Amino acid sequence: MAKVRTRKSPTKQRVEKPAVTVSGTLGLALFGTKFMGRAHSIAWANAPKFFDLPLEVKMAWTAGRDASETHEFGRTWGWNGSTIDWRETLTDPTVQLVDVATPNHVHREMAIAALEAGRHVTCEKPLAGTLADAREMRNAARKAAKNGVKTFVWFNYRRAPAVALAHRLVKEGRIGRIFHVRAAYLQDWGGPATPLVWRFQSAQAGSGAHGDLNAHIIDMARFITGEEISQVAGAIEETFIKERQIVVDEAAALTGRTRGAKSKKMGKSTVDDCVLFLAHMSGGAVASFEATRLATGNKNRNCIEINGEKGSIRFNFERMNELEFWDDTRPDAIKGWTNILCTESVHPYVKHYWPPGHLVGYEHGFVSHAADIVRVLAGQSAEVPLPDFEDAWKTQCVLEAVIQSARRRRPIAVSEID
Amino acid sequence: MAKVRTRKSPTKQRVEKPAVTVSGTLGLALFGTKFMGRAHSIAWANAPKFFDLPLEVKMAWTAGRDASETHEFGRTWGWNGSTIDWRETLTDPTVQLVDVATPNHVHREMAIAALEAGRHVTCEKPLAGTLADAREMRNAARKAAKNGVKTFVWFNYRRAPAVALAHRLVKEGRIGRIFHVRAAYLQDWGGPATPLVWRFQSAQAGSGAHGDLNAHIIDMARFITGEEISQVAGAIEETFIKERQIVVDEAAALTGRTRGAKSKKMGKSTVDDCVLFLAHMSGGAVASFEATRLATGNKNRNCIEINGEKGSIRFNFERMNELEFWDDTRPDAIKGWTNILCTESVHPYVKHYWPPGHLVGYEHGFVSHAADIVRVLAGQSAEVPLPDFEDAWKTQCVLEAVIQSARRRRPIAVSEID
Amino acid sequence: MAKVRTRKSPTKQRVEKPAVTVSGTLGLALFGTKFMGRAHSIAWANAPKFFDLPLEVKMAWTAGRDASETHEFGRTWGWNGSTIDWRETLTDPTVQLVDVATPNHVHREMAIAALEAGRHVTCEKPLAGTLADAREMRNAARKAAKNGVKTFVWFNYRRAPAVALAHRLVKEGRIGRIFHVRAAYLQDWGGPATPLVWRFQSAQAGSGAHGDLNAHIIDMARFITGEEISQVAGAIEETFIKERQIVVDEAAALTGRTRGAKSKKMGKSTVDDCVLFLAHMSGGAVASFEATRLATGNKNRNCIEINGEKGSIRFNFERMNELEFWDDTRPDAIKGWTNILCTESVHPYVKHYWPPGHLVGYEHGFVSHAADIVRVLAGQSAEVPLPDFEDAWKTQCVLEAVIQSARRRRPIAVSEID
Amino acid sequence: MAKVRTRKSPTKQRVEKPAVTVSGTLGLALFGTKFMGRAHSIAWANAPKFFDLPLEVKMAWTAGRDASETHEFGRTWGWNGSTIDWRETLTDPTVQLVDVATPNHVHREMAIAALEAGRHVTCEKPLAGTLADAREMRNAARKAAKNGVKTFVWFNYRRAPAVALAHRLVKEGRIGRIFHVRAAYLQDWGGPATPLVWRFQSAQAGSGAHGDLNAHIIDMARFITGEEISQVAGAIEETFIKERQIVVDEAAALTGRTRGAKSKKMGKSTVDDCVLFLAHMSGGAVASFEATRLATGNKNRNCIEINGEKGSIRFNFERMNELEFWDDTRPDAIKGWTNILCTESVHPYVKHYWPPGHLVGYEHGFVSHAADIVRVLAGQSAEVPLPDFEDAWKTQCVLEAVIQSARRRRPIAVSEID
Repeated sequence: MAKVRTRKSPTKQRVEKPAVTVSGTLGLALFGTKFMGRAHSIAWANAPKFFDLPLEVKMAWTAGRDASETHEFGRTWGWNGSTIDWRETLTDPTVQLVDVATPNHVHREMAIAALEAGRHVTCEKPLAGTLADAREMRNAARKAAKNGVKTFVWFNYRRAPAVALAHRLVKEGRIGRIFHVRAAYLQDWGGPATPLVWRFQSAQAGSGAHGDLNAHIIDMARFITGEEISQVAGAIEETFIKERQIVVDEAAALTGRTRGAKSKKMGKSTVDDCVLFLAHMSGGAVASFEATRLATGNKNRNCIEINGEKGSIRFNFERMNELEFWDDTRPDAIKGWTNILCTESVHPYVKHYWPPGHLVGYEHGFVSHAADIVRVLAGQSAEVPLPDFEDAWKTQCVLEAVIQSARRRRPIAVSEID
Repeated sequence: MAKVRTRKSPTKQRVEKPAVTVSGTLGLALFGTKFMGRAHSIAWANAPKFFDLPLEVKMAWTAGRDASETHEFGRTWGWNGSTIDWRETLTDPTVQLVDVATPNHVHREMAIAALEAGRHVTCEKPLAGTLADAREMRNAARKAAKNGVKTFVWFNYRRAPAVALAHRLVKEGRIGRIFHVRAAYLQDWGGPATPLVWRFQSAQAGSGAHGDLNAHIIDMARFITGEEISQVAGAIEETFIKERQIVVDEAAALTGRTRGAKSKKMGKSTVDDCVLFLAHMSGGAVASFEATRLATGNKNRNCIEINGEKGSIRFNFERMNELEFWDDTRPDAIKGWTNILCTESVHPYVKHYWPPGHLVGYEHGFVSHAADIVRVLAGQSAEVPLPDFEDAWKTQCVLEAVIQSARRRRPIAVSEID
Repeated sequence: MAKVRTRKSPTKQRVEKPAVTVSGTLGLALFGTKFMGRAHSIAWANAPKFFDLPLEVKMAWTAGRDASETHEFGRTWGWNGSTIDWRETLTDPTVQLVDVATPNHVHREMAIAALEAGRHVTCEKPLAGTLADAREMRNAARKAAKNGVKTFVWFNYRRAPAVALAHRLVKEGRIGRIFHVRAAYLQDWGGPATPLVWRFQSAQAGSGAHGDLNAHIIDMARFITGEEISQVAGAIEETFIKERQIVVDEAAALTGRTRGAKSKKMGKSTVDDCVLFLAHMSGGAVASFEATRLATGNKNRNCIEINGEKGSIRFNFERMNELEFWDDTRPDAIKGWTNILCTESVHPYVKHYWPPGHLVGYEHGFVSHAADIVRVLAGQSAEVPLPDFEDAWKTQCVLEAVIQSARRRRPIAVSEID
Repeated sequence: MAKVRTRKSPTKQRVEKPAVTVSGTLGLALFGTKFMGRAHSIAWANAPKFFDLPLEVKMAWTAGRDASETHEFGRTWGWNGSTIDWRETLTDPTVQLVDVATPNHVHREMAIAALEAGRHVTCEKPLAGTLADAREMRNAARKAAKNGVKTFVWFNYRRAPAVALAHRLVKEGRIGRIFHVRAAYLQDWGGPATPLVWRFQSAQAGSGAHGDLNAHIIDMARFITGEEISQVAGAIEETFIKERQIVVDEAAALTGRTRGAKSKKMGKSTVDDCVLFLAHMSGGAVASFEATRLATGNKNRNCIEINGEKGSIRFNFERMNELEFWDDTRPDAIKGWTNILCTESVHPYVKHYWPPGHLVGYEHGFVSHAADIVRVLAGQSAEVPLPDFEDAWKTQCVLEAVIQSARRRRPIAVSEID
């Protein structure tokens, strides 16, 4: 029943610009059919079920690289049509929002084309693989914004109820003046047995753990504290595993984390395995960040602790439904770390899902993100702030300052980058 | 686009029995549009996305009590047609599986009608609100089984990856001879402020925490250990809150946990607030069980610990992605409780969802359950055993033995019930 | 420098009764030189260091079974004199307090002799191995009390700062009406490899896990809640390992948990491996208790949870410095289990030890207990209530009611025992 | 009964050098009567009880600043004699070991005097408040070593059983090539309400959190990994609270953490509140360290995580009896963080204390440390390596490199310092 286009040649048709204002139905095109393609698909399919949305969501097109794979993906994950020519979807005037879920090095081209075609765009993080790409995207977003075109970036962790609650607690003043931010994103799949997939090649990935993981925790630190990272005080960029086995099957290599068909030939890894840095926040706090793929035993330990004059919070994505909160204004005898199981209807987003004590999972961050995009496009507010290209650009500048600091062996002010 | 039938008068049409063997497409009818209706709907919609299923799932009909509500529910949650006459769905020959997600006191009528109409049936737990109902259902299932008709019961927790892993570890002999089973299902929404919703009225609910929560942990204990509960040694059945505020709006009362429009008039609670019991397992282990709605601070603490000669396991649904395992065969110096984050592709069901460290939530137990039903109806195996009416009947007998023990103040062998 | 007496023949000397009122110096005699002997010795030696006590403590005598062992024990652990004739110490008029740290079956004889000799007595728990012994001891204590002689029982866990804090929180009304008490004392050293040491022989031990472990948690439940256990609703008493290897070396057998010199001959275990029971509390709460030596992976999991209308508390001795507290009066969005690290100076006993975050260990419960005994003997108050023989008798009655219930297969009111 | 000397004038007597080889009895002098004085006293008193030591320990002298306080301290904590002239104790030929437990700025003078007097010396950490002092001490130790005189430094955390176990696991190769060291020592008592006690004055303390806390975790990282810190890649040194209330009562100020008699006048804090740094280890690992007194909610969170190719370990002193271990060589389905409760007799030091599941506390690290000193002085081995001045000098060099890096805003090789 799903439509499929198999022409690979770039379409030259005149792009039909839809109305910027969305009402009634929101037509969607998704670029990308891998891990993030699946996550976004489930988000667009389920958001209208869990949330009472102001617009009907129409999953119009998905675009990938291989015709039959893309068709199959579209059929399975609920997309009306599929194509291997993403530009073609911009000729469909019902498509008002483009969702870019492809590898970093193609974000720029796709996002700018969509913006220029008058489409709202929501792009996977990080904004881009390089600072130059990110700057162009930010500029395009600024220009498009004048016509009311909106941009979004999928920093999905903001919508884990516990993270959104942390944001609120800080905003309400429950933490007070912030002294410390301590963030780390630890994974362990990057050992010597993992072959040379695209994520280890700077041409496609831009960087290693840095853009993939530090992007998340920089955004999370900024989101929760409401402060900017003003200076990188020192940094380490390290590649422990210098050479990895070349992957014979290029398609396997593209799926990223698959430990696919390996050859015996070794190739050079051209990205970092880990990046650590120390920083100053705009409000005076000191901060530490670490991203690594070699922290054995840590599968997805995206964690942050914030210590303030009146309280502290701790979060770890491996227990994503929980937020630890220390309220220093309580009587001494009963002070302690309070483990808040963020499944009450008063917690952000939760009332749309299940009763107390019934957990949400990884994908629900995407579902809530999608719901908030729909709300914002219909003129309503997001439950907590949605990052746009301008916002993601700030995170990108921090990423760049870190690399500069590591390579030039000195502190770098983020203002030197922008 | 969705069809809707609003006749309330029972349909008298001749029921069309579909083929018992399912191939190609599986047509579904869902009865019930509340909490479980939503959970089952998301399961049927997402199972074909996450799993590569042998049949296409067609969400044909949903049946509820109120026409416009049911229509709205069907439209939102992906059902093709809706009706307030559930019997009508049995006239549709494309419907081969009926999903009963209604309150306990109507399970019997619906399930038996569907079985007699030659439909496979999957029913919410507990099998029924009363032993008599359950017995009739079991008998009907036995009869239908002769024609190849299958039954299933939604003991969804079996398919939390951690619970399924526990089942496997026991089966592999990693726990050895079992000495102790320690299970509790603790919730806390049943305080004095909660009004007299249907769950506190025995006519509709059958029992209180007992049928709702003990049913789950009895099933879980039987599933993980592979042993039966042979004797109830002693039991307590307690109603702490004797009277509750009557709910004016009956619809609100029916939604169960809602703290809806209360009157100032008080009515009698006719169900237990908690039931505790001690038991002997068929393999010689001793066991304790507790279900309560008044364990302040425990939102959904469905937990079990099993101690054996070679090892132990611990599980708590509030951290449903984790299983704690003690391997007593390890060297003394490094023995300990190992917290297994059950998000690896080798863990049950996980390879269908997300990468390591990316959690699943409450609904995924239903998704996996639905996927296994489809597999079984297509002649394949479930990843871990699916309970049928026969199996759920055994749990029902234990529930009954417990109540008998509490009321007759003596030990009761489960064989006295069956 | 330490004195030693090696006569084994019971002394016939006239006992010198010291003044019941203690002032200046408190002379002590300790009976028992094994595990509890060591724990009490460190308590008496360190209490005057950590606490500013109203009396000087003089560790006068220790009495054991073997002369050279007892002498060595006394020399090492700080006792002035040692003897193998415990009655002899009662001839020393400087001895005003007798500390009974011997196996259960000799408590009665020693304690009563000391009381009759006008000595204050502090006895290890349980009060006795049998109900008859316990009753005699209680009677003797009542009689002695008329002369101002005081008794104490070493329920040491009351003085874990976290347990004492739990007691206070309940007393302050922070938990409100209590619905549930859930206590378990889980150990795992009683597997089939453990030989037939004295703890598995009812003649010496009275019972197995029951008197050893249930005694503790019954006392703890009574202490924290301030309620009595009024009825045992049902119970299981189980001996999983019916036969164990006989220990050749009787001295090894006496050290209890040692896995000493085993023979190939098997002997019958005459005590329980585990005892579980359900109960009603005097204030209306329902309760469950479990003591076992076969809960693989649980080394010393003495744990209790109490759920009330306004809050809950949880404690586990394997993390003895922590108390979990749920305050249900807090705003919904920040409610949670608060992990109180009980190392602040405002917490019970803590100001006498180390700064915040510097943990105390197992022995500190004894040190604080000893300090409170000294305070009470000097006419001051204990920081939290100290149990006396009367109090321990109540625990003993519950222990008995449990056994009666298990054996007679019916509920037993504790008042049937007393 | 205890001796006391009240002369304040420095003694001029000829120092009697005792034999360097210790046999029979070990005579001790302790300098310092505050927090560390108490910790060391309990260690020297209890080590001979818990451990079967090759020497008798004689607690001969304690030296403090105020005569009556020192006398009282000595009497309470078990010292034979007390004096306010520490040099006097060096005239006592029975004193063979001097224990320096005073503030950092007097370590040098006392330790060197004792070494020159032929005494073995055990000094509190950090070795000294300044690099210059530390260098002199190291030189003196080298010189004394030629005569067989030994030095020790009280890095007490090495002897938490869990930390000693971590050291062993690394040594046995269970972690493999180390990629990451992640250490932090977080406290929270340094908020704006804390007055200007000596610990905030660089003249006495040398530094703030840095020397106090980073010293511990640098030593711990070196001890566990067996690697040196070769380069500091970047650092932040921050004083959040620039001014604090002056303490009127100087004695109160000297007790350090006391929140004593404050005036309204403010004085300048001249030490850091926190120091963070990134580093490279000699074996190739990257490392991060943080010490702070402003991490609200963290009382004594001395924690470290080490990730290697074959496994990982995690430790947190607030749960000092536990070590978390990830064994990456286990089958995928049962891999996890294993929480080792380090209370088994096979764990380092544990067999000297209590049975499984019976925790040790803060002071036991000192007790075990004292026991190991006695063993080493008697020619035996320590259970795990004891740090001497040479070893502590290496930690001091890292401390200095960190400060240089923070102030000169560039990476500093530790070899630049030595």
